[in-house]
Amino acid sequence: MTAKVAINGYGTIGKRVADAVAAQDDMEIVGIVKTRPSFEAKIAQDKGYALYAAAKENIEDFKKSKMEVSGTLDELLDEAEIVVDATPGDTGEEYKKLYEKHGVKAIWQGGEEHELTGFSFNSEANYSEALGRDFTRVVSCNTTGLVRVLYALDTAFGVKKARVTLMRRAADPNDIKTGPINALIPDPIKLPSHHGPDVNSILPHIDITTMAVKTSTTLMHLHALNIELKKKCTEDDIVNVLKERPRIRLVSSKDRIKSTAEAMEFAKDLGRPRGDMWENVVWKDSIAINKGELYFFQAIHQEADVVPENVDAIRAMLEIEKDGASSIKKTNKALGI
Amino acid sequence: MTAKVAINGYGTIGKRVADAVAAQDDMEIVGIVKTRPSFEAKIAQDKGYALYAAAKENIEDFKKSKMEVSGTLDELLDEAEIVVDATPGDTGEEYKKLYEKHGVKAIWQGGEEHELTGFSFNSEANYSEALGRDFTRVVSCNTTGLVRVLYALDTAFGVKKARVTLMRRAADPNDIKTGPINALIPDPIKLPSHHGPDVNSILPHIDITTMAVKTSTTLMHLHALNIELKKKCTEDDIVNVLKERPRIRLVSSKDRIKSTAEAMEFAKDLGRPRGDMWENVVWKDSIAINKGELYFFQAIHQEADVVPENVDAIRAMLEIEKDGASSIKKTNKALGI
Repeated sequence: MTAKVAINGYGTIGKRVADAVAAQDDMEIVGIVKTRPSFEAKIAQDKGYALYAAAKENIEDFKKSKMEVSGTLDELLDEAEIVVDATPGDTGEEYKKLYEKHGVKAIWQGGEEHELTGFSFNSEANYSEALGRDFTRVVSCNTTGLVRVLYALDTAFGVKKARVTLMRRAADPNDIKTGPINALIPDPIKLPSHHGPDVNSILPHIDITTMAVKTSTTLMHLHALNIELKKKCTEDDIVNVLKERPRIRLVSSKDRIKSTAEAMEFAKDLGRPRGDMWENVVWKDSIAINKGELYFFQAIHQEADVVPENVDAIRAMLEIEKDGASSIKKTNKALGI
Repeated sequence: MTAKVAINGYGTIGKRVADAVAAQDDMEIVGIVKTRPSFEAKIAQDKGYALYAAAKENIEDFKKSKMEVSGTLDELLDEAEIVVDATPGDTGEEYKKLYEKHGVKAIWQGGEEHELTGFSFNSEANYSEALGRDFTRVVSCNTTGLVRVLYALDTAFGVKKARVTLMRRAADPNDIKTGPINALIPDPIKLPSHHGPDVNSILPHIDITTMAVKTSTTLMHLHALNIELKKKCTEDDIVNVLKERPRIRLVSSKDRIKSTAEAMEFAKDLGRPRGDMWENVVWKDSIAINKGELYFFQAIHQEADVVPENVDAIRAMLEIEKDGASSIKKTNKALGI
């Protein structure tokens, strides 16, 4: 028995989650939903995914593009056990009613508020709390990246406080409408930023504040972390904890990975689909303990790091696998992490 | 009597310091030094600055470009009381010997190490210590920007510790050789960065650490500051302290200054020469006290913020003015700050 998964919204995240789900042996894609024809919809069909229109009025558009659709979202929801909602943000409430009507479980992305589902998910930090749930939100790329390291460090040494600056990519690589081309934008200007509270939706006890700035780049986010730990430890202790985590990749500037651009080139050379880096990229040679405080840099591939988390969330919510570590292992193995 | 100032190196900083010196009524430019002819050298002559070649072997080059030179650096040094050295970094030791030979005082920029002069300068923090000195180093743009706010906050409330992320412009606007076009580069990768210790060359008692990242932009640096203060205070207290400082400009995103790009446009609209922003640009609406810690953003125009500091350093070293506040006032008035 394989779990029947629908993908509503086949953009940056949706298409990646679809492929990651298809790569697992305990789940399958029963259909993907798009509002409009596009090169992505065509490639999806070539891959064998059943294509559904978001609504009846969209079907004509697909016909004009000579694309056959299997039906509408409504019809797809009758086939699926769970839907991964990767539609643009702020449509959550509306779709939630629809999913409830069809008795389908649903996973949203970080663009939606915690309140929509009352539960925010990270594979390593709270898998067991997701077991059997109807609705879950996989937190954003930045929050996922922060939770991965903070959970690891908190478990090993206790995190007294974390002060993080997030240098955000301003637009995704395929986005031709967004700027800035040449500027730095404090965003939000009101401090601290909302990213800290978002981490608290999963790790409520951690004292974390964040400041975020949009930068003129498309490739990855970069985090500058300053953390006070409860237990005294060395730089080697930190390396040893982080290198054991399933979704943290330690790199070194000595290997000529000195920037987000080289980290992305590295993912491509690894043969990753779409050149995706699913793991946090932590610079080993940036890890420093100074006056008892920890410092390091990590890069987060905004298009990719939440993808394996979505796969694990499916397994937890459908109770295919009770143990988080086993699901993570399974997901990672199927993807080749 | 006006002080006779030479400018050695007429690039990004040198040309700006020359104009700022020329704008004062107690000092004058006796000559500027270039190694090669360029549009900048031609404009300098149009402005009435006497042009000197760095060495005899460079004179031929100027002749070929039909530019008349008044002599060489050696000859200029016999005319000058003080030289502002804005040559590319790491030539300090060599030139120092030359200046000593000619009995000329000298000011270097932040590209040189503190050790070259044994004294690092900031107008507000240590003007009086520069009085009568032969050699002084005006700290870098980033350090100048940090010292301005830290000195102000330390004087008013005491700084317990400062944790700062520096998002650096990767290249100046006229630099066509430097990247990255699309990446974030932790630089230096080794943490904390050298900017903290550089602040300590002026404010040795302040606990400051810094992390620095090169970003794909040319306009300004952006600092994300997290500061613990000794005295309890409100956001209004912070605003009131910063707005009284002579080289801090408070801006607000409500006035549509939301980024470094708009901060630079603001400087242009103010009618500033070359569109220069000599002051720290501090976002008033970013100033926040959260759990007893202070947070804010500031932008630093890397081409400009050290310019008024160079003028004040001249006045201190030649003892034209004994009082720092009076010199700052004079410099600011002449520039129109």
